[in-house]
Amino acid sequence: MISQLIEKIQKTKAPVCVGLDPMLSYIPEHITKKALNDHGETLEGAAEAVWQFNKEIIDHTYDLIPAVKPQIAMYEQFGIEGLSVYKRTVDYCRQKGLIVIGDVKRGDIGSTSAAYATGHLGHVQVGSRALSGLGADFMTVNPYFGTDGVKPFVDVCNQEDKGLFVLVKTSNPSSGEFQDKLIDGRPLYELVAEKVVEWGNASMDGDYSNVGAVVGATYPEMSRILRKLMPKTYFLVPGYGAQGGTAEDLKPCFNQDGLGAIVNSSRGIIAAYKQEKYAAFGAEHFGEASRQAVADMVADINRVL
Amino acid sequence: MISQLIEKIQKTKAPVCVGLDPMLSYIPEHITKKALNDHGETLEGAAEAVWQFNKEIIDHTYDLIPAVKPQIAMYEQFGIEGLSVYKRTVDYCRQKGLIVIGDVKRGDIGSTSAAYATGHLGHVQVGSRALSGLGADFMTVNPYFGTDGVKPFVDVCNQEDKGLFVLVKTSNPSSGEFQDKLIDGRPLYELVAEKVVEWGNASMDGDYSNVGAVVGATYPEMSRILRKLMPKTYFLVPGYGAQGGTAEDLKPCFNQDGLGAIVNSSRGIIAAYKQEKYAAFGAEHFGEASRQAVADMVADINRVL
Repeated sequence: MISQLIEKIQKTKAPVCVGLDPMLSYIPEHITKKALNDHGETLEGAAEAVWQFNKEIIDHTYDLIPAVKPQIAMYEQFGIEGLSVYKRTVDYCRQKGLIVIGDVKRGDIGSTSAAYATGHLGHVQVGSRALSGLGADFMTVNPYFGTDGVKPFVDVCNQEDKGLFVLVKTSNPSSGEFQDKLIDGRPLYELVAEKVVEWGNASMDGDYSNVGAVVGATYPEMSRILRKLMPKTYFLVPGYGAQGGTAEDLKPCFNQDGLGAIVNSSRGIIAAYKQEKYAAFGAEHFGEASRQAVADMVADINRVL
Repeated sequence: MISQLIEKIQKTKAPVCVGLDPMLSYIPEHITKKALNDHGETLEGAAEAVWQFNKEIIDHTYDLIPAVKPQIAMYEQFGIEGLSVYKRTVDYCRQKGLIVIGDVKRGDIGSTSAAYATGHLGHVQVGSRALSGLGADFMTVNPYFGTDGVKPFVDVCNQEDKGLFVLVKTSNPSSGEFQDKLIDGRPLYELVAEKVVEWGNASMDGDYSNVGAVVGATYPEMSRILRKLMPKTYFLVPGYGAQGGTAEDLKPCFNQDGLGAIVNSSRGIIAAYKQEKYAAFGAEHFGEASRQAVADMVADINRVL
């Protein structure tokens, strides 16, 4: 699966993914108004607004990018109706040829992780049929349970040619509270990184492993060390743009070959029309604002590579 | 919320919760057969089997127990159809007067955690209405992101009188890989425990905080230390029974007042009819086998308290 992602990154010359993390506050009024008029002030109405918003952004950006990363929390907040739109978004993106990274950060004991892996990436056996649940290409995984909590995800990846990004160093301000704590003189995130390499060794797919890592853009000095520790691990890099990470901060996430990282931007793309820079598009043309924001992001990142 | 849970524990004299973690392999053939006959070998058919299985177990145990803990992964594996049955199970249990602990182990950066908290415990604003998504009473939370990733869950608990159980020391064999690593001579899980106390200080509800902890039954010597470190923190204790924890192992999780912990059993209850001990009930009467297994578990735990 990682080789497919790399191929798409090379084809689009865009090591970026668009975070489809729709808050109602990002959605232009004309869309929300219509959805709530049609469906009432209900979860169904909110979910319909999210879907119309997503579709417009996908339609305006899919040819520029290799991948999208829907954040499932933004759908879960609207209950089953929201989750149905998560699934609809995943399916639509895949139809458009995009790689879908389900940003779900699941993780549990072995048998439970196996169920998550099945639901998000694999197939569940029902009678004589093997059925797909949520059907993403990659998912993000939380490593707190250790090897037996992560291994079932790796197993499903190996069976189904799918991929993971395991949390190593996250982009948020408190990430250091546990992740940076020193163990025998080295931060916890380095230990996690070594485990990610170990977990991914039997999942090579070309030059990189299907088991990747989440490494926040907001800590470039740590990215440099992690890049060396995990030479064959692809990085999913959140934190660019709205969270404060700059293109220069991203550089250490990449290898000499210009590969090794895919940078996510959510708010900076999907709510671009709300920025002064793109205000001229107007809320009615928010999809075009997002398209321009993608083009600008790609240029910004390629400038430093 | 924790005071409501304690009240129900005292009323039922049962510091236990039933883990509603339905694998298809646990469900008696007569249920699966009917569901797949009616709905085909589809996700809908599988979900219907899960629902019928859950309902029978709830109907046979709800008067003996204070709470249930559905593991959402077991529903996610069946996609949206499975998640709809998760929601239906949560609603049904609450109608039956049970406290529902959504075992979802979510955790992310702040704004994302806020969306998860809203979806699982809170209300999302849609136009002029505040709507409930998945509607549990408690949820489990992963602390890897640190304070700013956990705080939004605590905020929703404080606003809505709900509760959390934050992962501290999990019950699985590899849990020590990161959780036991020494930081300045003390294991990571103790640092997490201290943070849980800090996060819960402003969420007191009677003698205990609405911010609880997950502490596995399989490591009793660690439970003893954690009980002292977190005197006002309720423990959700997985690992009893099928995972190897005994009643004696659980004792250190409780305070002198006989409170302080609620012990979960999943497979040991819901698949009781498959054990030799309860085989006489037969697969047709699996609900009665589960009822007997609950009674036996309660007696076993009360014996050591």
